[in-house]
Amino acid sequence: MNETIQTILNHRSVRSLTNQLLTDEQIRIIVNSAQAAATSSFVQAYTIIGIKDQSKKEKLAVLSGNQSYVSENGHFFVFCLDLHRLTLAAEMEDVPSDETYRALTSTETFMVGVIDTSLAAQNAVIAAESMGLGICYIGGIRNQLDEVSQLLQTPNHVIPLFGLSVGYPADLPDQKPRLPYLNVYHEDEYNQDDQQLIDQLQQYNNEISAYYADRTNGRRKDRWTEAMAKLLTHPKRLYMKDFLNKKGFPLE
Amino acid sequence: MNETIQTILNHRSVRSLTNQLLTDEQIRIIVNSAQAAATSSFVQAYTIIGIKDQSKKEKLAVLSGNQSYVSENGHFFVFCLDLHRLTLAAEMEDVPSDETYRALTSTETFMVGVIDTSLAAQNAVIAAESMGLGICYIGGIRNQLDEVSQLLQTPNHVIPLFGLSVGYPADLPDQKPRLPYLNVYHEDEYNQDDQQLIDQLQQYNNEISAYYADRTNGRRKDRWTEAMAKLLTHPKRLYMKDFLNKKGFPLE
Repeated sequence: MNETIQTILNHRSVRSLTNQLLTDEQIRIIVNSAQAAATSSFVQAYTIIGIKDQSKKEKLAVLSGNQSYVSENGHFFVFCLDLHRLTLAAEMEDVPSDETYRALTSTETFMVGVIDTSLAAQNAVIAAESMGLGICYIGGIRNQLDEVSQLLQTPNHVIPLFGLSVGYPADLPDQKPRLPYLNVYHEDEYNQDDQQLIDQLQQYNNEISAYYADRTNGRRKDRWTEAMAKLLTHPKRLYMKDFLNKKGFPLE
Repeated sequence: MNETIQTILNHRSVRSLTNQLLTDEQIRIIVNSAQAAATSSFVQAYTIIGIKDQSKKEKLAVLSGNQSYVSENGHFFVFCLDLHRLTLAAEMEDVPSDETYRALTSTETFMVGVIDTSLAAQNAVIAAESMGLGICYIGGIRNQLDEVSQLLQTPNHVIPLFGLSVGYPADLPDQKPRLPYLNVYHEDEYNQDDQQLIDQLQQYNNEISAYYADRTNGRRKDRWTEAMAKLLTHPKRLYMKDFLNKKGFPLE
């Protein structure tokens, strides 16, 4: 197994990072790595905002649900889906804005933007981890996107999708076991045998329960399906559709 | 610069792959790498379908717009956003389906699924490339998702997002230059100076034009903004919103 695959398989989300700042060289390598990712039709539909201003980090930490690792880290990146750049391109080519409206507002184009941004981010993550840094994705910046957008001054057609805390690990957590291989990887077609999938999830529940029990002297024994049922009965961020619409993404 | 970062920076989309099949061990390493990616609230909202059946590969190649590298490769993966697994989890926990409806149909949850699937895919890509394999993402499977879903027998709440051709490169293309660093990486807030962004894109246009001219004896001199304006005036896959709705994602 080569070094790269070892790095990938060694991933864990690190929520405890030191305040030792990344160098500009490290930041550049991480951003260059992000930019090297594949991109749909070469659109490169993202912008990465790096937060150096400590007071801004602290504001973002509060907006993300008081997550300390948003402000305490070596660097904080915000990965934004960005189609504003495409509107500038159309302007430079003298294309009137009514001719770009349908493409800009389509669900398909939005999906391309989310995918492009995520591929770039994961490249950034692997590059950072290969340098011995720890990372944690911050979906919490979507808790209050209106405020986050104002803070970061993002224009129309730009959506901050997630944050990324990067830094030197102060503490390395254990790795949580992933879903069973055959539950995630199907051959030639989707496995339509729900009972088999349920049996696999049952086995996974046992594995996850044992994992928690082991680390809490038996106090916690959460099942995976229990955590998922809880997520599904507590819907989050239901304002998202309206927010996207307001920012130029009616998702037609 | 370490090996992992070299692998990342060396990426190019390889459209010419040999038919030498990946071993099951290679497939397992690629899928394990995908599964090691970070995932929002541990949902792991994806399923990967690996296509071994050559006739199915050929059907997918036709459905993707006659792209030969969908059928000619070492293995073809389809990365699907998957919330069907979560509905099984709710069932196992005796949660009635009307209690999960809002979370399952929200735009936020859909975004989580697209992000999760993309992070996993990019891990798979880096793992494959680190083993000397070439890859090409296939957004073309979204051209006719109804037919693709039927072929792959994907249930409700599962959306094939993109394909991934993997194999031994028959021919290695050049790397296309990416957007200027400062166009993509902003500090502390989004750069609101549109004229500066336009100047950077102008400089990028020159670079891209020279790249094409160099490789075609001056026949092609496409500007990046020209290609983007073309994309924006030729909207694609406008059926997506209806398709997602039909598959359980009204995006509320």
